[in-house]
Amino acid sequence: MPVSDDAEGAGPITGPLAQANRRRFLTRSAAAAGVLALDGLHGAAAADRAASAGAAAWTHEQGKPILSPPYGLPSPHEADVVRRPTDLTPTPLSSWSFTPLQDLDGIITPNGLFFERHHAGVPAISPDAHRLVIHGMVDRPLMLSMDDILRLPSVSRIHFLECSGNTLTEWKGPKEKTVQGTHGLLSCAEWTGVPLSVLAEQVGLRPGVKWMLAEGADAAVMDRSIPIAKVLDDALLVYSQNGERLRPEQGYPLRLLLPGYEGNMNIKWLRRLKFSDQPFYTREETSKYSDLMPDGKARLFTFDMEAKSVITSPSGGMRIGAPGFREIRGLAWSGRGRISRVDVSVDGGRNWQQARLQSPVLPKCLTRFRMMWNWQGGPAILQSRCIDETGYVQPTLAELVAVRGLNSVYHLNAIQSWGVAQNGEVTNVHA
Amino acid sequence: MPVSDDAEGAGPITGPLAQANRRRFLTRSAAAAGVLALDGLHGAAAADRAASAGAAAWTHEQGKPILSPPYGLPSPHEADVVRRPTDLTPTPLSSWSFTPLQDLDGIITPNGLFFERHHAGVPAISPDAHRLVIHGMVDRPLMLSMDDILRLPSVSRIHFLECSGNTLTEWKGPKEKTVQGTHGLLSCAEWTGVPLSVLAEQVGLRPGVKWMLAEGADAAVMDRSIPIAKVLDDALLVYSQNGERLRPEQGYPLRLLLPGYEGNMNIKWLRRLKFSDQPFYTREETSKYSDLMPDGKARLFTFDMEAKSVITSPSGGMRIGAPGFREIRGLAWSGRGRISRVDVSVDGGRNWQQARLQSPVLPKCLTRFRMMWNWQGGPAILQSRCIDETGYVQPTLAELVAVRGLNSVYHLNAIQSWGVAQNGEVTNVHA
Repeated sequence: MPVSDDAEGAGPITGPLAQANRRRFLTRSAAAAGVLALDGLHGAAAADRAASAGAAAWTHEQGKPILSPPYGLPSPHEADVVRRPTDLTPTPLSSWSFTPLQDLDGIITPNGLFFERHHAGVPAISPDAHRLVIHGMVDRPLMLSMDDILRLPSVSRIHFLECSGNTLTEWKGPKEKTVQGTHGLLSCAEWTGVPLSVLAEQVGLRPGVKWMLAEGADAAVMDRSIPIAKVLDDALLVYSQNGERLRPEQGYPLRLLLPGYEGNMNIKWLRRLKFSDQPFYTREETSKYSDLMPDGKARLFTFDMEAKSVITSPSGGMRIGAPGFREIRGLAWSGRGRISRVDVSVDGGRNWQQARLQSPVLPKCLTRFRMMWNWQGGPAILQSRCIDETGYVQPTLAELVAVRGLNSVYHLNAIQSWGVAQNGEVTNVHA
Repeated sequence: MPVSDDAEGAGPITGPLAQANRRRFLTRSAAAAGVLALDGLHGAAAADRAASAGAAAWTHEQGKPILSPPYGLPSPHEADVVRRPTDLTPTPLSSWSFTPLQDLDGIITPNGLFFERHHAGVPAISPDAHRLVIHGMVDRPLMLSMDDILRLPSVSRIHFLECSGNTLTEWKGPKEKTVQGTHGLLSCAEWTGVPLSVLAEQVGLRPGVKWMLAEGADAAVMDRSIPIAKVLDDALLVYSQNGERLRPEQGYPLRLLLPGYEGNMNIKWLRRLKFSDQPFYTREETSKYSDLMPDGKARLFTFDMEAKSVITSPSGGMRIGAPGFREIRGLAWSGRGRISRVDVSVDGGRNWQQARLQSPVLPKCLTRFRMMWNWQGGPAILQSRCIDETGYVQPTLAELVAVRGLNSVYHLNAIQSWGVAQNGEVTNVHA
């Protein structure tokens, strides 16, 4: 039975979480973890003194005034929570940066930390001058301004976006030290825009249309072919991300969103859509973004991001301070629909326990999973394994390599292992 | 029947939206609104030329490199999308700033635009030094560090937060020019933290506990009494907002979240929780944040933010460019649960049409509503009216004033009217 605690999203804490809470997490680990039980201070006066003794300088002086600044920023104490670049590319113009998953909670990625992948840098586009052309096998070709697009019927949906190259360093051995490095080409946002099915109605698709080319206005003129079924299903012309207009790095003022498809197909700085009866075989789908298989043939058009999960805390580079209870937290997602179950192992996959899933569990969206763990202080190997609503089970790396071989770069969705040492240090391991 | 298009959140565009899309929005308004139909350019070559003619400077030069900056910011073209201060307070230390609702889509408010209300400025708190004391009528008083709190079982939930003073300028006549001014003390985020029910289990509530005091570490030492039923229901000890740690303005490193309760009770910079058998009658709940009624008595403890809605586009200060189809968009919310229905009027409340609700519709959360409107170019008065799952219907201002009189400041949740003039100018009106 899935432990998707629906009550969590809708009111009282009930079900598995409520039962788990009857355990005494804090007192069990009090001495080791610095929890100071105020034993003997049951009288209000003594505890009030303890509370006000804790009042620091910030309580005795006025704080900063309102609107400092008008567009707010994180606390200076969080200055290390930033995107970090790869060291694998020769130029920062065609490169990528990783989201700090180890520092994030929930499922929304703040726009300032959303991962980046650009093929020719970030263009500075004027929204007033930008145009989208829709043409090819249509009855009424159109050229649309942003104002035209903003008037059309819109929807908002929360979806993840993952680069097909996410985790690409990990095929042959543990390489990146942190989950930011291994899995940080993954983010999630609430997107708002126009369903492409609306635009298809407006331009009138001709009989025989099977593909659509999407093309960006960046200097790479990034372009990909998209099957018409996807266009008419859930593809969106997006202008807004997490409430505000797209950031420049995410395609300002207009991008394509293909929920569940590999990141590069979600064309940013979108300037052209062309309908056709065949795919366009662009460089990006013949040379790039194809997967070389053991038999020497390449898989083309590998659109779906298959089910995948990873523990984000504890994760590589962290150090667990002391034995006792702590919550294991992670993310699961599938490009084919909803996550139906996540299991967690603390012994390298020999035993598994079912994790709680945060509701609402949305399709093609990150799902946060959690499980309390009482670390006894010995070595451990932490793993998560997810199953999506199609019944697909996230594979081990050995299972994946047995099918794909070791020549392909993209679509590594295997189970990730984090080793916990006796001293609490957490490292990336293959187990 | 509610028009909550569940299919919208789960895949293909079907139902009312799909039917609506069969209308020709773009061609109907093409001449007036600048949509350039490429008639006669059905041949791919001609349209390709049109598309590449649209290729601007940004396509011919490399863009900005990756990580500029590591914590990203909005486009310079969106520089006007910022919080704006009130002009009603004598000092920026005890003041508020408004969220630019007219510029936002969906339901998530970016952290940088989340509304502010401080009573003694924003304290600069060190998370390492911060402590939360829990005491009073409990068996095991505790003093917790942030590390202690971060290890505990957590949940994430998307909830709105609204100042009880939101819309306070509008009792006696239309005052603020924009929806940012009338309704901008309203925002919504995904919050992550520890259910207070978990902490209650850990400290052991004594028989007879009925209230909890929550106290902030700011120089105002902001404090409020909270009924124990709310504490054990859905109250959260929050450290994370929209994925990342709380911003300083939102209570870094720790705040209380009381879903659906008036904003000031969601104590920021939280340092103390004290359990008792009676309310504490703090200044904030006797003098402040009470409502003077026509009979001279004051309503105290008016916790719930009642159902309310507002059209955010078109809204005051905008100008509709030309007649034709455009989408009316707005927000609805209720502190008592889910929104079940929103109706929209374009003639000042004489006729109403049911709006589409974006799914998932979550409890105590903003709900985005939308309705296509074919503006013919004449005067119009736009209104929205919501109903929540308790059956409560958002009142007109006249209905609200008939009950509350005109002496009270807070909890104005009446229907908002926007007047559209012949020339397309939109203004705040009472109708």
